[in-house]
Amino acid sequence: MTKKHETQIKKVLIANRGVPAVRVMHTCRDRRIPTTAVYSTPDRLSYHVLMSDEAVHIGDAPPAESYLNMEKIIDAAKKVGANAIHPGWGFLAENAEFAQMVKDCGLIWIGPPPRVLKAMGDKIEAKRLAMRANVPTIPGITDVKDVQQIKDWMKEEAVEFPIMIKAAAGGGGKGMVKVESEEELPSALNQAKSEAKKAFGDDKLLVEKYIEKGRHIEVQVVADKFGNVYHLYERECTIQRRNQKIIEEAPSPSLNDDLRHEICYTATRLMREIGYETAGTVEFIFDSATKKFYFLEVNTRLQVEHGVTELITGMDIVGLMLDAAEGKEFTFRQSSISPNRWALEVRINAEDPRTFSPSFGSITRLQVPQGPGVRIAQGVYEGADIPPYYDSLFMLIMTSGPDRDGAIAVMDRTLSRNLRIEGVKTLAPLLLSIIRHEAFRRGEFSTRFIEEHMDELVSMFKERDSEDEALKIAKYVARISALGPQDWM
Amino acid sequence: MTKKHETQIKKVLIANRGVPAVRVMHTCRDRRIPTTAVYSTPDRLSYHVLMSDEAVHIGDAPPAESYLNMEKIIDAAKKVGANAIHPGWGFLAENAEFAQMVKDCGLIWIGPPPRVLKAMGDKIEAKRLAMRANVPTIPGITDVKDVQQIKDWMKEEAVEFPIMIKAAAGGGGKGMVKVESEEELPSALNQAKSEAKKAFGDDKLLVEKYIEKGRHIEVQVVADKFGNVYHLYERECTIQRRNQKIIEEAPSPSLNDDLRHEICYTATRLMREIGYETAGTVEFIFDSATKKFYFLEVNTRLQVEHGVTELITGMDIVGLMLDAAEGKEFTFRQSSISPNRWALEVRINAEDPRTFSPSFGSITRLQVPQGPGVRIAQGVYEGADIPPYYDSLFMLIMTSGPDRDGAIAVMDRTLSRNLRIEGVKTLAPLLLSIIRHEAFRRGEFSTRFIEEHMDELVSMFKERDSEDEALKIAKYVARISALGPQDWM
Repeated sequence: MTKKHETQIKKVLIANRGVPAVRVMHTCRDRRIPTTAVYSTPDRLSYHVLMSDEAVHIGDAPPAESYLNMEKIIDAAKKVGANAIHPGWGFLAENAEFAQMVKDCGLIWIGPPPRVLKAMGDKIEAKRLAMRANVPTIPGITDVKDVQQIKDWMKEEAVEFPIMIKAAAGGGGKGMVKVESEEELPSALNQAKSEAKKAFGDDKLLVEKYIEKGRHIEVQVVADKFGNVYHLYERECTIQRRNQKIIEEAPSPSLNDDLRHEICYTATRLMREIGYETAGTVEFIFDSATKKFYFLEVNTRLQVEHGVTELITGMDIVGLMLDAAEGKEFTFRQSSISPNRWALEVRINAEDPRTFSPSFGSITRLQVPQGPGVRIAQGVYEGADIPPYYDSLFMLIMTSGPDRDGAIAVMDRTLSRNLRIEGVKTLAPLLLSIIRHEAFRRGEFSTRFIEEHMDELVSMFKERDSEDEALKIAKYVARISALGPQDWM
Repeated sequence: MTKKHETQIKKVLIANRGVPAVRVMHTCRDRRIPTTAVYSTPDRLSYHVLMSDEAVHIGDAPPAESYLNMEKIIDAAKKVGANAIHPGWGFLAENAEFAQMVKDCGLIWIGPPPRVLKAMGDKIEAKRLAMRANVPTIPGITDVKDVQQIKDWMKEEAVEFPIMIKAAAGGGGKGMVKVESEEELPSALNQAKSEAKKAFGDDKLLVEKYIEKGRHIEVQVVADKFGNVYHLYERECTIQRRNQKIIEEAPSPSLNDDLRHEICYTATRLMREIGYETAGTVEFIFDSATKKFYFLEVNTRLQVEHGVTELITGMDIVGLMLDAAEGKEFTFRQSSISPNRWALEVRINAEDPRTFSPSFGSITRLQVPQGPGVRIAQGVYEGADIPPYYDSLFMLIMTSGPDRDGAIAVMDRTLSRNLRIEGVKTLAPLLLSIIRHEAFRRGEFSTRFIEEHMDELVSMFKERDSEDEALKIAKYVARISALGPQDWM
């Protein structure tokens, strides 16, 4: 029984920083719910602190002492009288223990039930549940012990190399090793085991067939506490570097309407069967050669790329998470959700666009894109620092248009003309190269797009250096200062 | 006969500056059409210059020497090989002579035909055409000569004071005098005549009944060269200061669906009858007491507030203007245009929010709002000057949501937390007071809203001074510097 007054969110503590913290604050503010930020010492002047109604210092720079410190975060919530916690994404968002602690303290957890977090956090268990729900999964074996076991399975199922070894506890591309040949197998298995142990404290592994021309497609799902489960259609997140997404779009250019409905209803069926609540995503790998899709994992949290779905559906996914957490029943219909736009997102990470090595420091100049079809999610302001301890993502640029070409055109305008960031290197030049690449334009790509085309992509931004806007402006200003008004060309 | 290759736009010269110039550039860039800016001496480092592909200096600060100098603008187009001119709004946008000159030079005029500009530029002629098209007009008389003629009409038609005297050539709220009593009539008539002569070089006047609780509602229309005329629904622009709009929204909260359809189809009928082409707006005054609407005028250009219509319909109105100018036939259907959002716009003018006196200077700090539901149209960058010679509008903030409350909530978040402008005074504090005012929230207001509530609105921003964000941040930074990490509250 849900009594309305018992579960009303009165103040939300946001157990996060940067882009996700600010994103959650926006919806809270729209609903007149006060927000409390938490912060580590280097974040004392961060954007998320100044955007909140109040903020509590919870510890020093290392995540274990601050953003992963469950006790300190819960103490902060008690101190300020927040009755709900939103974890954003990353950090504690998928931590079942933390979710349980929050609930045990009588606070509202704005996320899925701890039992779901636990089940989906174990890739082997998740895969078992998917198979039980008749969701197609990648052929493979779980509880991998040794090389012989893998060889036997490959022989029996007639699987060819390459194959993929994955950490059962993994996520976000970590703990994955691709194996190209039988010779590599023993060392790859050892590598995967030690990486898994190191990253997740758990060396359980699974092995799967490698989908050669795989595309990453995921379905956004929202569910209330009453078993109402809806999908908000799919996103395509195939453009990745080092197994991490950097460009996302909705809808997917890979699917026709039949496949779209099949994949979306498969996702809702799975989420309904596992008793999912709040917003979550079912990730699939899509084999463009065979047009088959396979279950990858369930992301039991708000995702970075949720905004593209908001742009095409007009729904506020964070708002739906608040509704679900308050025990409100969703009253819309699946048929009333009808996307009629195309949306694209790029991730502005503080990274060298050639090497992907992080580039931390102060943002000395920040001119944020604007204009029709543009949505920005910022985690920083001009003058702010990007500290070296955390995720390098500090801004998302989303664009939308009536169709894919339209959304790409707005993104091109935005990246080439509107955005100016000084003080740190960013992925922006690479992102512009990608969206201008013919294969991307045609929608022909796999998760290996960047590795396959890296030289070409880098040469595209070398070409652009000659028409560099900043240089052009400097020359123009010099001419004007010396000679008076001049034509700008 | 329209041959495609003869009318294809290859390069657009934008005969404007600031917000409208940048807006037109955005769509041109999305379509890969190069743009040429023009600029006056004080605008040599303006945003619109740096955002264009090239720019031509056309003269000194006074508009007559630059942005109103038709020959120089056309020479600039010829010089750079632009084959089309977009006039933005203001300056030459509704100038029939300029439109004709552009066409006579063999250039494409991105606007309505000169004959339409001429007819609609004369308020008396426009009213006659509206009456002929059976569009309801405000009771009144045209070709006003003397006081006696007005008195006779009032007696005959049983019209009571107040009445409104308007310049036939007027627009944008200029040349309008409200007359409260018979005693005021002679001086008011003289005032209106001399103002009209001064502002428009034409002292023709008309007199109309004054609609007491009037609301300003307008219908966005788009039309191609083949007689296809569509409406993109209505906007409510009732919140005005000195007869100039400062807040606009779509749809209108005043109309039910029957009235909405009636007013929208009345507008398309009128535009079809006058042979309208490109984007334009039919303005009405709506009497909320009697639920009747009356024709005011046709705005034969892109309007400042077109963006709220774009947000609710997903259409690109500047794009449709380019299509119409190229002679493309519109192939969509009226029934396919179905708004399903609510959008709000506020005008960020460089003005004292108490006195409306202009506040020009350098923008020393500009933090632009971002986040879900926000669209920005900027005419400046941080560090840019707002010169005293031109319009004080330098930024538009548009927000959208699933309903009116949602759009208002996003605007509140944006104005109260996200926007930071230093160096010039702006209307922002007043705009925030208005959107928080109970009467505005309830949708109960007339064009006199600001004069009726000014003291209250100003006292609302006095109250807010105590919770001023900048002061709060300064105190927090001081505490942190002195004492180390502190809670932000």
